[in-house]
Amino acid sequence: MGEPEPSEEDVMKVLIATDCHLGYAERDAVRGNDSFVTFEEILSTANTENVDIILLGGDLFHDNKPSRKTLHTCMQLLRKYCMGDKPVNIEFLSDQSENFKYNSFPFVNYEDPNLNISTPVFSIHGNHDDPAGQGNLCSLDLLSVSGLINYFGKCTDLDNVKISPLLMQKGETKLALYGLGSIRDERLHRMFREGKVSMLRPREDSETWFNLFVVHQNRSRHGLTNYLPEQFLDDFLDLVIWGHEHECRIKPEWNGQQNFYVCQPGSSVATSLCPGEAVPKCIGMLNIYKKSFKLSKIPLQTVRQFYIEDIVLSETSLNPEDPDIAERVLEYCCERVENLIDKAVSDHTGNIQLQV
Amino acid sequence: MGEPEPSEEDVMKVLIATDCHLGYAERDAVRGNDSFVTFEEILSTANTENVDIILLGGDLFHDNKPSRKTLHTCMQLLRKYCMGDKPVNIEFLSDQSENFKYNSFPFVNYEDPNLNISTPVFSIHGNHDDPAGQGNLCSLDLLSVSGLINYFGKCTDLDNVKISPLLMQKGETKLALYGLGSIRDERLHRMFREGKVSMLRPREDSETWFNLFVVHQNRSRHGLTNYLPEQFLDDFLDLVIWGHEHECRIKPEWNGQQNFYVCQPGSSVATSLCPGEAVPKCIGMLNIYKKSFKLSKIPLQTVRQFYIEDIVLSETSLNPEDPDIAERVLEYCCERVENLIDKAVSDHTGNIQLQV
Ligand SMILES: [Mn+2]
Ligand SMILES: [Mn+2]
Ligand SMILES: [Mn+2]
Ligand SMILES: [Mn+2]
Repeated sequence: MGEPEPSEEDVMKVLIATDCHLGYAERDAVRGNDSFVTFEEILSTANTENVDIILLGGDLFHDNKPSRKTLHTCMQLLRKYCMGDKPVNIEFLSDQSENFKYNSFPFVNYEDPNLNISTPVFSIHGNHDDPAGQGNLCSLDLLSVSGLINYFGKCTDLDNVKISPLLMQKGETKLALYGLGSIRDERLHRMFREGKVSMLRPREDSETWFNLFVVHQNRSRHGLTNYLPEQFLDDFLDLVIWGHEHECRIKPEWNGQQNFYVCQPGSSVATSLCPGEAVPKCIGMLNIYKKSFKLSKIPLQTVRQFYIEDIVLSETSLNPEDPDIAERVLEYCCERVENLIDKAVSDHTGNIQLQV
Repeated sequence: MGEPEPSEEDVMKVLIATDCHLGYAERDAVRGNDSFVTFEEILSTANTENVDIILLGGDLFHDNKPSRKTLHTCMQLLRKYCMGDKPVNIEFLSDQSENFKYNSFPFVNYEDPNLNISTPVFSIHGNHDDPAGQGNLCSLDLLSVSGLINYFGKCTDLDNVKISPLLMQKGETKLALYGLGSIRDERLHRMFREGKVSMLRPREDSETWFNLFVVHQNRSRHGLTNYLPEQFLDDFLDLVIWGHEHECRIKPEWNGQQNFYVCQPGSSVATSLCPGEAVPKCIGMLNIYKKSFKLSKIPLQTVRQFYIEDIVLSETSLNPEDPDIAERVLEYCCERVENLIDKAVSDHTGNIQLQV
């Protein structure tokens, strides 16, 4: 920045993660604990990095109705890592009864005198953990009602969505945090086209706020309307945290048309065997100072890495004239796959294994 | 007692309730909220009565896997009524890591410096909410891991059950609280017969403790072994709180053979149409002072009352010679039933209706 480093008291430190998919493959004998182990790594990193808040982009749970064990482990980890004596140095400025109007306790958890919160977690819901059923509740509501997280970005009136930002201040830095929980893509596309979505801005000094938006939709184009085009979003935004897309593209990408950055952290556990999920998994350390930010990536140590390789038979020494060529090819491919599995096992075993 | 009234600082006040069956009939348009409304009445009564602790005897939930709404409402009510600034004047003396060894946070919630508990709830599980599945968890584990209740009385080694009491002191009163979560009756019967169940006693001054046992089994005889005979229980006990049986028999009944009292609070919501469930529902206010206790009943105001009447046709003016007698009888019975329904509605409507 060329300027002197800002003082710590003026920098808001936000840990960014998304799509933790707790409970993914929980009945798998080998991978059953993967999602929990990595979630613990994320929370533990938040503590060692001494962040002010944790921001999650949805799909915290893999199943809309998580198993008891999944819910239990999640609550255990949140209580262990997000409660304690560390003071929260964030002043909450907006109308909490508006920001959290769908919550039973419509205020931020760290202002509840009955809870000693050290690291507030803020989360929107994803399509995997969206509200459903009686009372239109989701799993995040269970974490919210027990005081473990701050769930925001729910909207019930889809004819008129007004997104009120959570306004938070730390020293000289003022954050306007906008959130929109997952909505069916085609529906949201239409809502934007029909002008039914608006983002409210603070009345005073609106230019001095850092405007952060967290969203959980298709980012890449699927058909004509089955995604959320970046150009639908307001250009007063400074940074968009994009959940739902599992590929880690955490380095902020500049959208020159909209004049904002987009950061796509990707999931913390691979849920499908595809090239996007074989990219090393990271979380983000976002430092906000006034209207500027730095986002550094923190590689996750506990993730079970996927490896993908192309096999080009013509580049091997295999002889197509060999009468047993089919068998040779099979042997060759098996060996390559076994090598990859060995590599994955050895890479993973060398990493931190946290205890859940 | 003939003696002067003991000072308040020496009397332990315990609110006794059981079988709240949260979520019972939750999809019923009329009765859907009954279980929650009465649970709120119970917690609210605990506050107005300024009790030291709440003791629940199992079947807090009706379903082993309660709906999200049921879990959410329960958590909401516990956070609302059991957290706050009222100091807890109970000193916990036993080894908490032993008492709560199956809990992720193996200590009593009011000693957690991160939680501001005003009224600690202690509960065993019933047969409706017993541990099952991955991790052998039950719904009470979710309340426990989030710090909302103190779940005890779980045992996993059914070959050798040693019940360690929770030792608590308030002034001159020392309570040894024994708990045993629901076990299949025939199995427990055999375990007792084979001497596999034992209750540990405090080493020092064992005669000075008030020994309270909370259990959730069949009390009335079903077959030879499908219940828990009172004479199986240790005679050093002073009072047994018996859950599972839904009929309110809250006035302590003396068992002269065993030298203890048995108090059966009954459920707080009627789950079957039978005479036992038509008895007015109550909870208990237990005051313990040293080795003596008083238990007064508090009638619940919000319960939807059942009425049961016998119809004896020979005592009516109906004439058996009437050619339309079948129709007359039907009319008569319908009228009587309608009258009972009217009475139930008017009785219920006149009562407090709490908002959930
Ligand atoms: Mn996802
Ligand atoms: Mn998603
Ligand atoms: Mn029962
Ligand atoms: Mn019951």
